[in-house]
Amino acid sequence: MGYTRTNAKDIISAGFDPKKTFIFSDYEFMGGAFYRNISRFSKRVTFNVAKAVFGFDGSSNIGKIHFPSIQGATSFATSFPHIFGEDEKKTAKIPCLIPCAIDQDPYFRLTRDCAVSLKYAKPSLVHMRFLDALQGPGSKMSASDDTSAIFMKDTAKEIKNKVNKYAFSGGRETVEEHREKGGNPDVDVAYQYLQFFLEDDEELAKIRAEYSSGKLLTGELKAICIAKLQEYVGAFQDRRAKVTDEIVKDFMAIRPLEWQGNPKVPRADLVVPVVKADEAAADGSAEGGEKMTKNQLKKLLKEQQIAAKKAEKAKQKEETK
Amino acid sequence: MGYTRTNAKDIISAGFDPKKTFIFSDYEFMGGAFYRNISRFSKRVTFNVAKAVFGFDGSSNIGKIHFPSIQGATSFATSFPHIFGEDEKKTAKIPCLIPCAIDQDPYFRLTRDCAVSLKYAKPSLVHMRFLDALQGPGSKMSASDDTSAIFMKDTAKEIKNKVNKYAFSGGRETVEEHREKGGNPDVDVAYQYLQFFLEDDEELAKIRAEYSSGKLLTGELKAICIAKLQEYVGAFQDRRAKVTDEIVKDFMAIRPLEWQGNPKVPRADLVVPVVKADEAAADGSAEGGEKMTKNQLKKLLKEQQIAAKKAEKAKQKEETK
Repeated sequence: MGYTRTNAKDIISAGFDPKKTFIFSDYEFMGGAFYRNISRFSKRVTFNVAKAVFGFDGSSNIGKIHFPSIQGATSFATSFPHIFGEDEKKTAKIPCLIPCAIDQDPYFRLTRDCAVSLKYAKPSLVHMRFLDALQGPGSKMSASDDTSAIFMKDTAKEIKNKVNKYAFSGGRETVEEHREKGGNPDVDVAYQYLQFFLEDDEELAKIRAEYSSGKLLTGELKAICIAKLQEYVGAFQDRRAKVTDEIVKDFMAIRPLEWQGNPKVPRADLVVPVVKADEAAADGSAEGGEKMTKNQLKKLLKEQQIAAKKAEKAKQKEETK
Repeated sequence: MGYTRTNAKDIISAGFDPKKTFIFSDYEFMGGAFYRNISRFSKRVTFNVAKAVFGFDGSSNIGKIHFPSIQGATSFATSFPHIFGEDEKKTAKIPCLIPCAIDQDPYFRLTRDCAVSLKYAKPSLVHMRFLDALQGPGSKMSASDDTSAIFMKDTAKEIKNKVNKYAFSGGRETVEEHREKGGNPDVDVAYQYLQFFLEDDEELAKIRAEYSSGKLLTGELKAICIAKLQEYVGAFQDRRAKVTDEIVKDFMAIRPLEWQGNPKVPRADLVVPVVKADEAAADGSAEGGEKMTKNQLKKLLKEQQIAAKKAEKAKQKEETK
């Protein structure tokens, strides 16, 4: 379980709110409602389907063949009664958004098919792309190749050296040629990284224009990138240093969560009404809709807290017997 | 989970000691050390092997294909740390005896292979045979055919009627012929059942001799069988009526067990010494042997009780936070 805790620390350091975040290990969380969903999932996938999707063959072990059910069951709200409540009629309707890289895509395409048969909300995917390695477009970072990537544990000096020494440049061979013809930001790793680490889009556009025109030299572009990376990695390292084992334990504790939507973005249910206005007027409530209103969420939160308290009391009663 | 509780009640009614018996549902017990073993097991079985053993094909679902790991993991002491303790070095050596019918045999043959690779003690099997149906040798009992079997819920009167009316007889067509040639106990269902339900072997031999010689008539043999069945089923029903939901819960509770061997049979470790006498003298202890001495068992029991208490305290501490 070594990697689990270490990875959890990295994830937490990205800045998640413990009130809204439950991190779990399939291995440790196994059982209960989660396992019920795994079992329901596995009944709905034949070997032929799993083989077609994942390329299994006769020499694949039966754990690997079964694993898509575990991966899939994590995307159903019904697997997490401590968060969403015990009432499957309600929780089956709560959809799930999965940010993942393209290699995880087949699992959740299969899951979307299964969700229909299970009468659960289908999960949705946001595909993340991998950052190019320092060697430029098409190259791949590797944990075993120190020159392929900036690691989150690199010092400011290491970042500077790596970018200057290894980052593929879209610049010209000589300063004169660069001034005359301009650089190519589309293959320039420093520029590519800035697309992710520079929040200010106007500044990014300015850098692109100046680099393309030849006004900005490769060394200058790299310096901007280095500063941004040092800032990002440094801030991450500061947060990472503060994540204790105790904090990981808190994030991984089975407990109700609290959420009220993100105050920074407009509420989805205000933009897209849960039900049409006339329907709502007729019913007097928004029950049965796909999304939940603020009040429903509040009610659910209260319900789940009561359920958690009850379970706790029952447990304690059991133990003191 | 309806059948689980009902079946558990039937099993408990057979007369198990709650101090020595842990009944569990794979579904509810899933997780922890049990799941770790399931996962280790599933890594060691390829689809080709599972297919050869169980006859799976491409249309088998991946839950079914994975199930042998669950079935198999139940036969390792390491799956039950609350009973045998947390120390896998010790618990890996505790063997398991599985009484089962022949249809479960393939699971545990596979398990014996896996046990070697897992460095666990191989489980041993005791194969139970099915009682013949009332229709005689080769016939099969069926829950949906009321005339095929004596059910454990049958009344004394129903037992009498069923045996008299449906039990296949090894007797002759007429009393005269029976007196002259004798009956055939080997096909006579009443006699077959008495082999199981009549504890006294001398009496059984006498019945066999008298029936074969023609001294005992079919009606008389059936009457003996009926009395024995009524006694057995009646006693079962009395015990069954006393098994409450609470008792089932106690049997299924995750808790340490207490055992000191069966006082009715000679201790295996007295008959077969754990280590050779000279080895024991050289080592000064019997550690590392396949079987455990009385003292080791006592020590283990103490250890597991301490572990359980610790876990309980930690849990309570957690909950009162």
